[in-house]
Amino acid sequence: MDLDHLRAMDAADPLRGFRAAFDLPDDLIYLAGNSLGPPPRGALEALQRTAREEWGQTLVRAWTERDWIGAPARVGGKIARLIGAEPDEVIVADSTSVDLFKLITAALRATPGRSTLLAVEGDFPTDLYVANAVGDLLPGRRLRLVDRDGLDEALDEDVALLVLVHGHYKSAEVFDMAAVNARAHAAGAMVLWDLSHSTGVVEVDLNGSGADLAVGCGYKYLNGGPGAPAYLFVAARHQGRLVSPLAGWMGHAAPFDFAADFAPAVGMQRFLCGTPPILSLAALEGAIDLMLQADMAAAAAKAARLGDLFLELAAEACPELEPACPGPGQRRGGHVAFRHPRAESLCQALVGRGVVGDFRGPDVLRFGLSPLYVRYEDVGRAVEILRSVLPKEG
Amino acid sequence: MDLDHLRAMDAADPLRGFRAAFDLPDDLIYLAGNSLGPPPRGALEALQRTAREEWGQTLVRAWTERDWIGAPARVGGKIARLIGAEPDEVIVADSTSVDLFKLITAALRATPGRSTLLAVEGDFPTDLYVANAVGDLLPGRRLRLVDRDGLDEALDEDVALLVLVHGHYKSAEVFDMAAVNARAHAAGAMVLWDLSHSTGVVEVDLNGSGADLAVGCGYKYLNGGPGAPAYLFVAARHQGRLVSPLAGWMGHAAPFDFAADFAPAVGMQRFLCGTPPILSLAALEGAIDLMLQADMAAAAAKAARLGDLFLELAAEACPELEPACPGPGQRRGGHVAFRHPRAESLCQALVGRGVVGDFRGPDVLRFGLSPLYVRYEDVGRAVEILRSVLPKEG
Repeated sequence: MDLDHLRAMDAADPLRGFRAAFDLPDDLIYLAGNSLGPPPRGALEALQRTAREEWGQTLVRAWTERDWIGAPARVGGKIARLIGAEPDEVIVADSTSVDLFKLITAALRATPGRSTLLAVEGDFPTDLYVANAVGDLLPGRRLRLVDRDGLDEALDEDVALLVLVHGHYKSAEVFDMAAVNARAHAAGAMVLWDLSHSTGVVEVDLNGSGADLAVGCGYKYLNGGPGAPAYLFVAARHQGRLVSPLAGWMGHAAPFDFAADFAPAVGMQRFLCGTPPILSLAALEGAIDLMLQADMAAAAAKAARLGDLFLELAAEACPELEPACPGPGQRRGGHVAFRHPRAESLCQALVGRGVVGDFRGPDVLRFGLSPLYVRYEDVGRAVEILRSVLPKEG
Repeated sequence: MDLDHLRAMDAADPLRGFRAAFDLPDDLIYLAGNSLGPPPRGALEALQRTAREEWGQTLVRAWTERDWIGAPARVGGKIARLIGAEPDEVIVADSTSVDLFKLITAALRATPGRSTLLAVEGDFPTDLYVANAVGDLLPGRRLRLVDRDGLDEALDEDVALLVLVHGHYKSAEVFDMAAVNARAHAAGAMVLWDLSHSTGVVEVDLNGSGADLAVGCGYKYLNGGPGAPAYLFVAARHQGRLVSPLAGWMGHAAPFDFAADFAPAVGMQRFLCGTPPILSLAALEGAIDLMLQADMAAAAAKAARLGDLFLELAAEACPELEPACPGPGQRRGGHVAFRHPRAESLCQALVGRGVVGDFRGPDVLRFGLSPLYVRYEDVGRAVEILRSVLPKEG
């Protein structure tokens, strides 16, 4: 392992300045940003300002005077710049699961002639749970699960909506968004993408790839804090005909008129439901403000190189680990994955040595490679430590 | 106006020590806690600790090591003590609106033989919007609106669920919970109470009054911060048969098994959906910890006395204000309300004089009287200032 070479790669990295913007101990090799991103200093500052100054000093008038009421659309508009969307196509609201429910239900109700909701076996559980629940709730609709290779064949004239996780949470496989959108549209179906494991580590160009709908999580590669609010994207051409089933007051055209009847707001505001969690939103906004300073293409390129490097070094140093993700040079999400019968205890041994990865049952080790704070040297050291904790042969 | 007498009342107030626990300027007369409670110092400290120490130092392992995963049930269990419920009957999740959707849908689906969802005209809009949306979503169910006096007559054998706001957001009228529950149960219906304007200012005894279901908001009299998560109550006897339509992974019996099929958790955990907003939850927990130090009966008694005093002083000093809430000695929520044709500009003039109340169209002034930090002297001074900003006669 040539650490000098890795240090030279870090020195030449155009994103090298970003690590200092995180409140992260210098010697910690944090490879779990695919589960929970660490705190950007700006997120902690935004949180403190919002709590102590805005809540503490401006109190209830902060809804207008500090524009809390505008925060979901404002932060959504910032996230839009990371994912190839227009500012008025994205809003921050609730959790990914709740937002999946809103968009799946809205899309199925807007497509009365088609009965099938299509999804892929083994996708992230919450996506499938919510899809199945909506299928149960709406008369005459059903969820159909196929394997990844069976998608094309399953896209027939009865499919209303295809729900797909763009980057897989375990295998790190990534769909070709433009190609899937094109095939679905040719069959007359819409596609809802879950970007939770993509935004910030894979290039996402929603409008460039003709996307219809998307949701995504704020606390993984966006570093918005534990349980940060999620975001929704609805392409401008669909906004007028989709109505959220969660008709709460914040989605009303005029919430402070306290009108007796519900009239959905124009635009993305209609996908709000209750009062947004302003403190969690403040941390998310601080995190997004940092991410907007990075070039997303450079971030995706670095994430890919970090992953290639990890796989190449591990192939050499730890041949007993079985790669469980796309190989070097292939389209891959922001983490690498390996199988090992003792994956769970390996994961714990690594934590004890200052390398935080994570375990997904029954036998998968995952290492998230967030390009804003993971260094090439971290990858080299992580593989060295990984080798040292692997059971000795014989 | 005898300020000395009011100061003596403050000196004798068993809750007088609580104001110092809030980060609230001493000279501010803050009467908008029915809209947004001010920050308890303990809430700000809990927020900072959770952000800087837990997120910043423990990172992803905080889900288990700092028990983030247990926070919704833990904070719910604390709120239970404020509302006469058992700890395992309350959980914190999402917003009031989303929680209304979950419980209304679950209750209607569990009652297949009855088609009517009953609610009261003029109740808080989001409750009616959500009720109406559920009625639209479920085949053969419909929302029926009646006026407050028509409830008894409307409770027939077709009513599955009655949705009521316990304390009215504008008029401060409060239902007799035990009496309504008894009448609904006699008709075979369940009742869902919205406690948003009750908890902390009115005695609430859910189990003592035979309640079935409830939701409530965390950011009004609970002082949990802007957009704080809400809470749900489901009486133990109903928990097994109600299933949330929002089947997200956090409501699964074993979320970290990542199983393909949804199996609802036992108990209140099944009413979770997505990942909880830990930062907002931390502030709420800090606020609840303060509230648990107060006797709820004493708090309700003081809120009633503050309201009676406000109404009596205003009747004398500002006879041109028309009371728009129950009078002295009557059952009333945590605020008083008055009608005046210039209510909106009066509200603004008061803010300029250090008295924060709020305005609800077209002509209502509201003053929230949160017993933990509003002083009797504040009420006297507020009425004096109110008199001074009223247009002079002639």
